[in-house]
This record gives sequence, structure tokens and C-alpha cells, in this order.
Amino acid sequence: MSRPVTPGTLDDAITRPGGELLAVLSRHLPAIRSGATPNDRDGAFPVATFRDFARDGVLGATVPAELGGMGVSRLHDVAVALLRVAEADASTALALHAQFSRGITLTYEWRHGPPPARALAERLLRGMARGEAVVCGAVKDHPGAVTRLRPDGSGGWLLSGRKMLVTMAPIATHFVVSAQAPVAGGPTLLFAPIVSRDAPGLSVIDGWEGLGMRASGTLDVAFDDCPVPAGDVLARGSVGAHSDAALAGHTVSSITMLGIYAGVAQAARDLTVTRRPGTPSAATRTLVAEIDARLYALRATASAALRNADELSPRQDMDADDRGRRMMTPFQCAKLMVNQLAAAVVDDCLTVVGGATYVAGHPLARLYRDVRAGRFMQPYTYVDGVDYLSAQALDLEHDNNYVSARAVRPVDGR
Amino acid sequence: MSRPVTPGTLDDAITRPGGELLAVLSRHLPAIRSGATPNDRDGAFPVATFRDFARDGVLGATVPAELGGMGVSRLHDVAVALLRVAEADASTALALHAQFSRGITLTYEWRHGPPPARALAERLLRGMARGEAVVCGAVKDHPGAVTRLRPDGSGGWLLSGRKMLVTMAPIATHFVVSAQAPVAGGPTLLFAPIVSRDAPGLSVIDGWEGLGMRASGTLDVAFDDCPVPAGDVLARGSVGAHSDAALAGHTVSSITMLGIYAGVAQAARDLTVTRRPGTPSAATRTLVAEIDARLYALRATASAALRNADELSPRQDMDADDRGRRMMTPFQCAKLMVNQLAAAVVDDCLTVVGGATYVAGHPLARLYRDVRAGRFMQPYTYVDGVDYLSAQALDLEHDNNYVSARAVRPVDGR
Amino acid sequence: MSRPVTPGTLDDAITRPGGELLAVLSRHLPAIRSGATPNDRDGAFPVATFRDFARDGVLGATVPAELGGMGVSRLHDVAVALLRVAEADASTALALHAQFSRGITLTYEWRHGPPPARALAERLLRGMARGEAVVCGAVKDHPGAVTRLRPDGSGGWLLSGRKMLVTMAPIATHFVVSAQAPVAGGPTLLFAPIVSRDAPGLSVIDGWEGLGMRASGTLDVAFDDCPVPAGDVLARGSVGAHSDAALAGHTVSSITMLGIYAGVAQAARDLTVTRRPGTPSAATRTLVAEIDARLYALRATASAALRNADELSPRQDMDADDRGRRMMTPFQCAKLMVNQLAAAVVDDCLTVVGGATYVAGHPLARLYRDVRAGRFMQPYTYVDGVDYLSAQALDLEHDNNYVSARAVRPVDGR
Amino acid sequence: MSRPVTPGTLDDAITRPGGELLAVLSRHLPAIRSGATPNDRDGAFPVATFRDFARDGVLGATVPAELGGMGVSRLHDVAVALLRVAEADASTALALHAQFSRGITLTYEWRHGPPPARALAERLLRGMARGEAVVCGAVKDHPGAVTRLRPDGSGGWLLSGRKMLVTMAPIATHFVVSAQAPVAGGPTLLFAPIVSRDAPGLSVIDGWEGLGMRASGTLDVAFDDCPVPAGDVLARGSVGAHSDAALAGHTVSSITMLGIYAGVAQAARDLTVTRRPGTPSAATRTLVAEIDARLYALRATASAALRNADELSPRQDMDADDRGRRMMTPFQCAKLMVNQLAAAVVDDCLTVVGGATYVAGHPLARLYRDVRAGRFMQPYTYVDGVDYLSAQALDLEHDNNYVSARAVRPVDGR
Repeated sequence: MSRPVTPGTLDDAITRPGGELLAVLSRHLPAIRSGATPNDRDGAFPVATFRDFARDGVLGATVPAELGGMGVSRLHDVAVALLRVAEADASTALALHAQFSRGITLTYEWRHGPPPARALAERLLRGMARGEAVVCGAVKDHPGAVTRLRPDGSGGWLLSGRKMLVTMAPIATHFVVSAQAPVAGGPTLLFAPIVSRDAPGLSVIDGWEGLGMRASGTLDVAFDDCPVPAGDVLARGSVGAHSDAALAGHTVSSITMLGIYAGVAQAARDLTVTRRPGTPSAATRTLVAEIDARLYALRATASAALRNADELSPRQDMDADDRGRRMMTPFQCAKLMVNQLAAAVVDDCLTVVGGATYVAGHPLARLYRDVRAGRFMQPYTYVDGVDYLSAQALDLEHDNNYVSARAVRPVDGR
Repeated sequence: MSRPVTPGTLDDAITRPGGELLAVLSRHLPAIRSGATPNDRDGAFPVATFRDFARDGVLGATVPAELGGMGVSRLHDVAVALLRVAEADASTALALHAQFSRGITLTYEWRHGPPPARALAERLLRGMARGEAVVCGAVKDHPGAVTRLRPDGSGGWLLSGRKMLVTMAPIATHFVVSAQAPVAGGPTLLFAPIVSRDAPGLSVIDGWEGLGMRASGTLDVAFDDCPVPAGDVLARGSVGAHSDAALAGHTVSSITMLGIYAGVAQAARDLTVTRRPGTPSAATRTLVAEIDARLYALRATASAALRNADELSPRQDMDADDRGRRMMTPFQCAKLMVNQLAAAVVDDCLTVVGGATYVAGHPLARLYRDVRAGRFMQPYTYVDGVDYLSAQALDLEHDNNYVSARAVRPVDGR
Repeated sequence: MSRPVTPGTLDDAITRPGGELLAVLSRHLPAIRSGATPNDRDGAFPVATFRDFARDGVLGATVPAELGGMGVSRLHDVAVALLRVAEADASTALALHAQFSRGITLTYEWRHGPPPARALAERLLRGMARGEAVVCGAVKDHPGAVTRLRPDGSGGWLLSGRKMLVTMAPIATHFVVSAQAPVAGGPTLLFAPIVSRDAPGLSVIDGWEGLGMRASGTLDVAFDDCPVPAGDVLARGSVGAHSDAALAGHTVSSITMLGIYAGVAQAARDLTVTRRPGTPSAATRTLVAEIDARLYALRATASAALRNADELSPRQDMDADDRGRRMMTPFQCAKLMVNQLAAAVVDDCLTVVGGATYVAGHPLARLYRDVRAGRFMQPYTYVDGVDYLSAQALDLEHDNNYVSARAVRPVDGR
Repeated sequence: MSRPVTPGTLDDAITRPGGELLAVLSRHLPAIRSGATPNDRDGAFPVATFRDFARDGVLGATVPAELGGMGVSRLHDVAVALLRVAEADASTALALHAQFSRGITLTYEWRHGPPPARALAERLLRGMARGEAVVCGAVKDHPGAVTRLRPDGSGGWLLSGRKMLVTMAPIATHFVVSAQAPVAGGPTLLFAPIVSRDAPGLSVIDGWEGLGMRASGTLDVAFDDCPVPAGDVLARGSVGAHSDAALAGHTVSSITMLGIYAGVAQAARDLTVTRRPGTPSAATRTLVAEIDARLYALRATASAALRNADELSPRQDMDADDRGRRMMTPFQCAKLMVNQLAAAVVDDCLTVVGGATYVAGHPLARLYRDVRAGRFMQPYTYVDGVDYLSAQALDLEHDNNYVSARAVRPVDGR
């Protein structure tokens, strides 16, 4: 008899394609797990794993079946898949998330975007399904740099600037870049040009050494008058528009990362909670109970937010601003708690296992570093999340679009 | 258009009878809410509310429709109903829980028990549906007293002892009592005699003054050679049997109380998070964000545990011990977190609203006292919950049946 | 051999008068302890205790020996005395704090004030030493009321308004009142008129029912054109002056309350941590260790802040603003932590002792209610404390004088 | 005018030699600070810094002046010195602690030990004062190895086994090793042989890569029938003796490490709390206030425990067991809280500064890894500390000597 599933805790996929993705991934997990420690040590991207992913269709998991993909459409199931990968290696899951996330948002463009966006999306999605297109997001500007588009004079654009924290960059074939285009006499417009890796003027800059998530291939990408055809640019509103409609896309892009931190916490728990000789100490019993309770709450909370996003995401009948907020608010509640609970679980696991974990290569030491990434991820960091949630609760004026808000924030080098 | 429901957070009923119960209850909420402060002050049981409940069928909400009840069978929906009542008054919800819980467990006896238990259960359930039977649980022995059954010599029993913390006692018509019956040369047997309030030798003892939940009618009940017919006694295993099958019943009896503490936290939040003149301070914004995030996690966690119990409760195909543990473990994870999160939410609400709450009659002062009850409720208190969860996680020998475990614990006057 | 003292933890007095005060108080503690439960239940002020205090010179403990008092001048020793009393009954300690605090601040006026203030202070201090003068502070305006002084046309003043949360009011002979006096064309001035209880137009309003600290005699006092002679008014700067010099006085007035919450936590701990039959559970052991560690930190932190205030308080050579901040900042760090740690200790004590504490009259239930007062006390509540500490740390503009800041805050009914 | 000192918070030395040590160290701090990042990256021990320490007498700071040392005798002042160094680099402080600690314990042997121990101690102390002797402690057995002394047949001993986590090993000239010597028919005896680095059979094993404290030179040391003269062995009681007298020595050896974690937290705070452009967010203000409050409590708590140890350490008149416990209990309370508060401060600092800290070489990333060492240090780890403190509080039987207790614990590979 198969293991009973605990409902509402990201324990299993809820759609058939989701289940198929889990089945395919399960064959890769041993290799991913065995690469986790050396790749973390060396800051090495698991190129072979992604080659295998490409071969087995994993890179097209979130591409619609009509376009050749596996057709996983539920955020819940994507998160479960990332959870399983993160149990083996969080860095690999983070990189894979970048591809899954692009699949979901490009599918949205393909279904609901204007015709040129549909064509662009279809081209990329078919490439992802064939394992040929690897598409990264590049959102965060390097301190001091503002990434900008300007007309090239013949209907296209030129892109200049520098992005940091671009995950999966070592194998990327395309980058979806957040860029501003100043307009004389009007508000600054926001765009998302999609740039091919071999575009002139584009360079991927090696050398990032993270505290954790060290095998995620998180690098800087610089653009120096990089030409972008007009058809490869998605419109993303304007700075200061305070449009909450954008929150739907932001939620969809990022919410599945909750699965990654659930996987990190679960991995830490499973390394810790094992029968050992002798009577467990009082503190061990207390911490183990707290670990299991927190992990359960973490998984249940993430699951609820994912199901909410899955329910609202296809709703074209709702007010778009309202839908954006109704997707983002549960996501942010869940994100705040998942980040806090995952860090607490991992920390208590180190305490239970003891001094043996205080070695760079110990899996729990890696998880202690990896888990800390969660609170820095947009949308939103803890600090921005407090602003968002309190503005919602207290009905305060606030620009909830973090891309827009960042565009006008003073640069402080952080 | 109706308000969209947030899935997985106890936001609405998931069955038709559950929805009908919510509709009936909604008519009672204003009166319950307005009685909360005076009843708390006076320690007065809301007799009129329960008279109205009886009239409207609420006291038979969990009785099967075949027996004249409303037929609410999902624990999830019972918890949502208790949540709504607890938002108005937690004491009323706690008392109502006692009746709802008896409806569910007696229905189980009616469906799956031996023939005499079925007959007994049917009689009581029909009475509950008519609003005539009000059935309390009486589990906890008074310190120093052990409640015992002994044969009366003619096939029946005599019950002696004293129970404390019997909720809804002022209007009870029957008590389901946990009792021991020593057997010469064998293990002590456990029984649950069901005793009518007018049985000779039974006395309900007034005078409890709680820290909180003061209107819940929580009293002592004493038994002095109280006669109990053989047919009114349910078998409950033996002391020290370490039977985990009993955990299913324990879960079903108590898990819906999670809704009560969700309601307490929600009520505190709603009293606190309102637009006020002026710019909110930094601490207010931070606490409000934390309050909303914790409340979301609390509701999601409780919801997941309830859905799990609903799924496993009818499973007659599983190993009974395994089923018991699979129901209890998520419940205990959820209970530990719900108790902690609810208390944290209420405490932060007092901090945000400020010194005005430090008055006996302030609703937040009441919630501060009410919320503290959660950690004392079986199964399990925090202390016993740590023992249970760590024993499960670390595969340690442990008597998980708290009724059995309590039966052999040294009396310490607590 | 006498018990060794643990340094730096408020374990004993550090001056001879401080030690004498402890000796006198020790004779009163049994009566205070036995009155705690009934006075809490009834909200009754311990009049007899204060009569005994008057007789034994306790009401003049902080009056200089030259004026007939016991001459306890160190804030540290005052806090230790309050800690001892609070272990027996926190309400009594809170009321006694009001008198001790007035002794200290009036002594400062007597030594450093302008001549009329010196005369006024001497008169009151001599009365306190004789046990005849009982002097309350009345700072917080009733919502909606602003307490104001206006000239009576013949050199004196008329006082109108209403104060709330005036502790020790039932036996007060005098009130030191925070009042505003608007000045045509200039900033509103702040004054502290000292009003005799029998002044025409003054009424003490009974009927407060607190969540905790119920025996502290905390009442409203109303003033209706109450005449105040010119010589009975102390100048307190002006609204919006942003004078940090005032922080020294605010610190001295309130910092000894840290001893009260240390006493509450210690009392909870001592009710909980006792040898009981049987093997303690894992959670009990863990919580007991956490309780003792937190209590130690609480006491050490309070002690350090008190010693700092004792060292800086007499420093007339320093810049007055700088001295104010250097006294207030450690006090606020300590207050934030003491409030948090004391509440955590008490809460864990309830968890360890269990359901028996969930009774209105249980000492731990009282302490659970009493301890919550700490976070509402000025200076500062948690919310205002975050504003103060972050403004200090980040060098932000902020009016640190809470009396001044409150004077311009919009009334919101809290 | 010099900066006023905040009393009771490890703000300054309280003895003249302590002040002199701070003055000498202040000259080294810039170099230590600038080496912190590269040494952490490379796991490189700061050999040059310790060469300079040797030259300037720092390695003899805790050696009595009569023996040529600086004569710093107060644990408080040693902790302040370590705090200052740890603000610049925690690894350097941890290594320096090893030397300071040996100076203190050898001075105790020199003053109170039996004659052979005095001679041995004097020889080493004079070497330390000259900067020639560098003496490490080697306590923790490698998993699977038990370090044992056996008679060499001619009055001396042979030492075999393997120690791990020996800090400052790269430059050590001597090792004080915890070793067992089984005695036929009696309890296993405990000894502390002092072994010269060039002893035959001793090897220092390179290759440790820590999660943090990476420049502390923490290595394994193996012994293969290493000869030890009889005069170079200190007696340390027997396994299972339950002698609490040993706790005094354990406290003295380790309590000054509290200064290291205070320094780590202070450094994190100072990297975080600076005026930046723009209005700080609500979460930033709240976290900054919490950071400063916790840091104050941390420093005050550590200071109190250090002062207590300083007061009791020289007390030869007390019962030795009682003195041991009275030193250890406040130390453990302080250690539990310091570890918790320091970790919380560092974590909140990362949150405030944001994603820029999530880089291996960022100082806050280093502090995030360094601070985690605290909870693993003996005496006691968190788990063992709970056992100790709860046994003290609840009067339970417990072997408080962790060296003895470890000697009988089943090996589990941690």
C-alpha cells in the first residue's frame, strides 16, 4: 500500500502532470544529493544535472503540453517539485525555480498577452520544452547602476546597465531583464526586454561567492548598448503607477520558492531526527517536538498560500488590482512565516546534532547558510514585507510594485 | 458578488450542512458578542444563548440527519463554526464545543460500536437533535480523587469520584465520565459511563472562578455511589495498554478546538488593526505585519490538521494504531503552534492598542485571559505534547493515551 | 554564615540605608503576601499595609536623613526594596513605588531647584518622613481631556482636567500633576502643580477595575478649577522644546519599577521550580532551565541600568541633554528586555505548573495579569520605546520627552 | 573629556593591569580587523598577529607580574579584552582566549596546587610571559577515540588518542590534554598531562574547515604512545565522582568566552546601525531598537556572571562543591542567554542591511557563521546546559563534570 498523503502540507502533487514531474525528478535526486556538498564547497553550478534535466524535459515542466512541455500548471505542484529537489540540494532547486518560473509567466503571456508577446512567448516556451532555451530573470540592479533601455533610432532598443543575483546564469540562453525607459515629459516606463545570451554587448560576469546557495549559479550580467528587437520587449507599466495588478505576476513568479525553504527545513529535520543510542536528553526531546511542529506549520502555511494563488491566478473576471492584492497578501504572510520557521528549524537542528555540524562541509552547516537566503528574496524582503502587509492592514498609501519602488529608491550600496 | 474565500484557512465551510450551520449561527452572533463582557465579568454561563441554540437545532448540529440532526460531519466545518462563535465569545464556543464533540463521538459509536453502545448513542443523539440532551465530557480527576466504577452486585455499576473542568455543566443533562474499574489480577479497565444529571449521588458543584473562559460553565461534578446501568457504560480499553487506536477518538474529540483559538486570535486582530488618525509608528507597523502573518499561519495550520483528520477518520481499512497516530501527530503539531501563535497574536494586539486594554472589562484583556486556556487542554498540554511528539519522532516507548497515562501518574495537587 | 550575594543581580542593597530599608520591609512581607490574593480579587487597596509603612518610616525611605527620612538615595537599592515587596505582591510594590519615586524627585528639587521649589519640596519631604504626606504622580490625561493651568488673576493658578492611572490614589494626600499652560504667542508651557487632596474642586474617582495590579489603588483624579498657589507649581519646560535634559528626571522617576517586574518574575519562578514527586518531563526540564536563565538575564540587565542611572544622576558637570540621554538609553534597553523576559518567565511558569493555574485566584494567574502592566508604563511603552531607541541609534529627529510628545498627539481614545 | 563608561556592561577594564592590556591591544586592532576577511576566506591562522602579541607581552597577559606577566587577574577584564579583539575578529579572540585561559588556570595551579604542579605551572607561565610558550587545551576526544594515559613502566606515562577542536594549534608549543587512566579495580582516573609539541608521537593534523571561526587554528592533535614525564601530569579527579568542586575550574577556563560573543554581536550592530540616506523603514526602526536592547542585555548579563566568578574564584573559605556550583550556575544562565541573544542580534543585523550581506566575504556573513560557535562550546552546550540548570533547580542527581560525563557517554559519531 502506498504511503498515505498528509493533505495540505505539500506532501504530494495534486495534478497528473505534477505527479509525472515528481516521478521524473525522483530519478535525478540521488545525483543531486551527492553533488550538494562538493558543489557548495566549490561554488560550482551543477551543469550535468541541468543537462539531464534538459534531456528529460524537466526544463519544460511548466510549458503547456500544446507547446511540447509537461504541462504542470499548478503553482502548488511546482512548489512540491522544488521541495523535493531542495531536500537534496537547495541551490539546484533555486536555479530550477528560475526556469519553472519563466515557464509559468511566459505561458501567461502566451495566453493573455498582446500578439507580439504571444509570439515571443511561444518561441521561448517551445525552446524550453525541447531543453534548448534556459531563461533567467534579471531584476536587481547592481548598486550604482540603473539598467535602461533607449531607442536605437530604427525601431529597436539598446540596453545598458548591470544586474546582480541572476540565478542559473552559467547555462542561461536568455535573460528577462527589468529595465527602465525614461520618457520625455512622462513617467518612466518599465519594460522587460528578453535578451539572448549571445547578444552583442552582453557579458556574464563570473566570481560570485555567496554565503549560501553557492551552487545556484548566481552571477552578475552586464549590458553595454546591447541591441534588443522591438518584438522582444514586454511592457511592464510605469514607475510610480501604484498598480496592484502587477502583484499577480510577482506572486506567480516567486511563490513557488516557498517549496524550496520547506525542502531545506525538511532536509535539516531528517538529518537530525533519527533514533540514536541512549536516552535522548530533555532539551533534545523538547527541540525535536518544536522542530516537527514548526515544520508542519511551515508546510501547511506554504500550501495554503499556493492553493490561494492557484485559485486566483486564472480569474480574469476579478478586478485586476484586487486580484493582485488577494494573491500577494497570503503569499507575504506565508513568506514571512516560512522564512522565520525554516530558519528556526535549521538552527534547532544544529543545536540537537551538536558541534559536529560546525564544519564547513557538514550538510547542516550548508543548510544553515542556504536557509538565510529566504529573507532577502523579492517580493518581499522582511523589511519590505512589513511595509506591504502593514499598508494593506492599515489602509496606508504605498507603492506595492517593488520593481517600481526600487526604481525611485536612493542608492545606498546595499 | 460574494467575498472570495481564502482556501485552506478555515474561511468557510466545505459541506452544505456546514454552511447551513454557519447561517444559523450568524443570527446568534450579535447576542453572543454583546454578552461576552458581562458574562466574563460575572462568570455567568449564557443560558439564554443555549436555549436559543436548542430551539434552532444548533445543539444537534453534529447529529446525523437520519437521527434528526443537522448532519455536520466534517471536523473542518465544526471548527469553522466554533471559530465564528469564538470571534464573538470564546467561552460560548468552548461550551458549544463540548456538545459538538459529543455529537461526533456518539455518532461514531452509533455507526461502529457494539449493539448496546449503538442503542445508547442513538437515544442520546436523538435527544441532542431535539435540543433536549446536553452531554458533557468529564475527564480530569480532581486532585486526590480517582473516579472509579465498581459492580453494584446486580449487573450494574456504582460510580464514585470527582471530576473537575467539566465545561457546559450548568445546563448538562448527561455526563460522559472517564472512570477506572480495577480488576482483580488484571489490568485496570477504563470505561466511559454516561450518567444522567438527575442520577442519585451526582452533584454539580458551583464556584469555579477561572482566569479566563469564565462564561464556559466549567465546574466540578461529584459522584457518590451513583448507580449506572450496564448499558450506559462504554468500554475504553485498559490502563497501560499503550493502544494508539484510542488516539483517533481523542483527536476527533478535541481537534475542533483549534477553531476556538483561531477565533480568539482573529477577534484580537480585528479589535486592533483598524485605520486610526495619524501616521502609525514603526513598532505598530511591524507588529501589525507580524500579527497578520502569524494569524494566517495559525489558520492554515489548523485547517491542514483538520482536513487530515477528516480524511483519516472514516478509514476503517487502515491499521487502527497507525490511523490513531496519523491523526494525532498533525493535530499535535498544529495544536502546539496554534497555542503559541494565538497567544503571540493576542499579546502583540495589547501592545499595539496600548494601556487602554489594561482594564478588566476590555475585550482584549478578556482575550488575553481566554487565549491562555489553550495550552492546558488535553490532548495534550504543552508538556505532554512534547513527550508525545518526541516519542513519535525518535521512536521511543511512550503511553500515548493520556487517560491511561494520567491514571498511573502520581498525584501532585496540580 | 550568611547567604553569599550574587553581584550585579539586584540580590542585595549596596548602601547602609538601603539595607535598613530591606530589614524594615522584611517584617511586613508576610502580611503583604497573605493579602495579595484577596486584594487582587476585590481590587482593594492595602490600606493597613500603608498605615504600617507610615508608622515604620517606609513612606519616607527615600527622604534624606537631614529631613527625617531613611536616606535611601541609590536607585539600585530602591529597586531591590521594590523587588522584595513585589515578590510578595506586585500591586503593593507599584503603589509604594509612587511614594519612593516622589521622594527621589522631590529630593532633587530640594537640592537643585530654585528657592521656592526647595521650600515646597522640603515641606513635602518632611511630611513623607513623618508618614503624613503621601504623594502621587498624575501624568496621563483621560482621553479627551487636557489638563490645564490658567492664571487665577491674583498670582495663583486654577487647574482643570482629568488624570487617569493615578496609583496609590486612595490614600494620597497630594498629587503632582502634569499640566499645560498655553501662553499667548509662545509655546505651551508645561508645569507640575502639586495639589492637596482636600483642594476645592479635586475629586478622586473610584471604580477602576484593572486586568492586573488590581490592588495598586489606580484611579482617576479630576480637577475642576482647583486653586493652586504659585509656590506649589514646578516648572517643567515647554511643549516641543525637544529638551533631553528632562530625560534624567524621567529616568529617575521610573527606572526603579524594573525591580517590580523582576520581583514578579522571581515570584512566578519560586512558585514553579520546586522538587516534585516523579521524574520531571523533558519539557519541564527545558522550560525550567530557560526560566532560570531568563530570570538571571533580567536581573542583571535591570541592575546594570540602575547602576548607570545612580552614577550619572548626581553628575552636575555633564551636559544636561547628554546626561539625560545617557541615563534614558540604558534604561530603555533594560525596560524593553525586562518587560519581555518577565512576561516570558511568567508564561513558562504557567505552562510548567499546568492547568491548576488557570483559576482566577491562583498566584500564577495573578502574576500573569500583573506582569502585563510593564509594557504599558511610561517612559516608554514598547511602541514609544522603539521610536526612542531607534531615533537614538539612527540619529533621527524625535521629541524624547513623552510628556511633551503626548501633549501634541491626536487623541484617539486609547 | 574621556567617554563616560557604562557600568556593568563590559565597557571597560576595572583593574589597572586590565586597562594596560586594553591599551596594548588597541594598537593591534587595525591589523586584526583588516586580516579578518582574508583569513576567514582562507581558513588561515593569523600567525603574524600572534608573533606581535608575543613580542608585546599579550601572550602573558594573565600571567602574574611576579612571573613576568602583565598580571591581569580579573576574569572581567580578560573578557573585556577578548570583546575588543572579537569586535575586530572573533577567530583571533577565540585563539587568544585559549592562551589567556591557560594563564589563569596555571596561575591557580601555581598558587594552590601541590608542589610538582606548582613547578610545572611556573615553568610554563614564565615561558608564556616571555612569549615563548603557547599553551592550548585539548579536551574533546575525536569520535571513536578515547585519549588514555598508561604507565610507561618507569614512573612516567604514555599518552595515546586523538583530540579535536584544539584551538590555536598551529602555533602551540604545549597542549594540556584531558585523558583517562583506567585503574584496575577502581574508578577511571582523569588527568591533564601537559605535552610539548615536539614530543615523539604527537602530530598536529591540518585540514579543518569550520563553518565559522575559521582563522582560529582549530585542529586535531593525535598522540601515539607519546611519553609524558610524571611531573607534567595534573590530577583531575575520577570519572563518575560527581565532584562539583571541578566546576570552579571549568568556569574559570571558559567564562571569558562570553566576551567573544559580546564582541561578535557588537561588531554586527556597529556594521548595521548607521545613519543612511532616506527615512528608515518601520521594520528597520523596530529591529534596530530590538538589536540595541538585546545587546545591552547580553553585555549586562555577561558582566554580572563574570563579576560573580571573580568574587567567588579566590574564596578558599567556602565549601568547594558549593563554590563550584555558585560559579557555574550564573555562568550557565549567562551563557545560554548570551548565545541566544548574540545570534538574534547578528541575524537581525543581516535582515536590516539586506541582501548585500549574502556574500561569503561580507563581514556580517562571517559574523553569522562565527556566532553559531557559541552554542557548541563546553561547558555546556545548550543541550547539556539544560540538563545542568534543570538539575540544579529541581535538585536532581546529575554528573555536572562534563569531562567525566563525556567519558562514559556512548559514542555516536557527532
